[in-house]
Amino acid sequence: MTIEIQPVAFVKNSRETPEDDDWGRVASIIELAEHIPTESLTGIGEFSHLEILYYFHLVPDEKAVARSRHPRNNMDWPVVGTFAQRNKSRPNRLGITTVKLKQYEGRTLTVIGLDAIDGTPVIDIKPVMNEFLPMGQVEQPKWSKELMANYWKKE
Amino acid sequence: MTIEIQPVAFVKNSRETPEDDDWGRVASIIELAEHIPTESLTGIGEFSHLEILYYFHLVPDEKAVARSRHPRNNMDWPVVGTFAQRNKSRPNRLGITTVKLKQYEGRTLTVIGLDAIDGTPVIDIKPVMNEFLPMGQVEQPKWSKELMANYWKKE
Repeated sequence: MTIEIQPVAFVKNSRETPEDDDWGRVASIIELAEHIPTESLTGIGEFSHLEILYYFHLVPDEKAVARSRHPRNNMDWPVVGTFAQRNKSRPNRLGITTVKLKQYEGRTLTVIGLDAIDGTPVIDIKPVMNEFLPMGQVEQPKWSKELMANYWKKE
Repeated sequence: MTIEIQPVAFVKNSRETPEDDDWGRVASIIELAEHIPTESLTGIGEFSHLEILYYFHLVPDEKAVARSRHPRNNMDWPVVGTFAQRNKSRPNRLGITTVKLKQYEGRTLTVIGLDAIDGTPVIDIKPVMNEFLPMGQVEQPKWSKELMANYWKKE
């Protein structure tokens, strides 16, 4: 079974190469693709946060696989599977990030905290609703806290 | 630009038709697709919550479009665009839901709170990390709170 999808928008920002850390200060513009009508954003400005679903378009085929490994090849961290990590080397090359909506105007959104590089295809945009946030306490392993320590740092 | 993706797993549960509300008590089993190695789930049991990215496979072509409308055709709510809603009638037919991981064993995950019907293709699984939750207060319009009132109700 193969599913075909098309970009609905594209990212514009100052990051031209993938980097591991320091995404906190990056502002991005998300601009609708030509075939998407302007009205599809109507009312989005009433939400403070959005989920951006995007495609890691630079990941080569040989890395877009499910497996297990030390995150970032750091031997201090355990071997964990692709689906216990959020990194870009994964089947289907899909990324999801919650961002803060700073500005909405016409066919463009300006957002803070999108960890995608310039030119990234966006394949969906969803509003964050409190009712869809995790129910109950979120628990996670120690390695993941260490990995995230500098991720959102403002360089 | 067309992106091709393949299911990495499938949903098994007791809901055979799409319904608007009462998803709170539904337990689902997510079973890896045949071509996905078992090791891709290693370590996932240390996370309490997962993000499940799935494909609304029953949505017909004519509904998989970006537009604007009254949510659930309720005239009491404003006309809003596809990207200011989370419903299934959208380009690319992609759904994202945060679930609670109840059990992990071999090639299967048992989760609570997945709003997808039996047979739904899963296209990615990501662990929820506190560092990826929304930063700051989440604000949303009144209509979206009213719409969500019974969504997670336990029938």
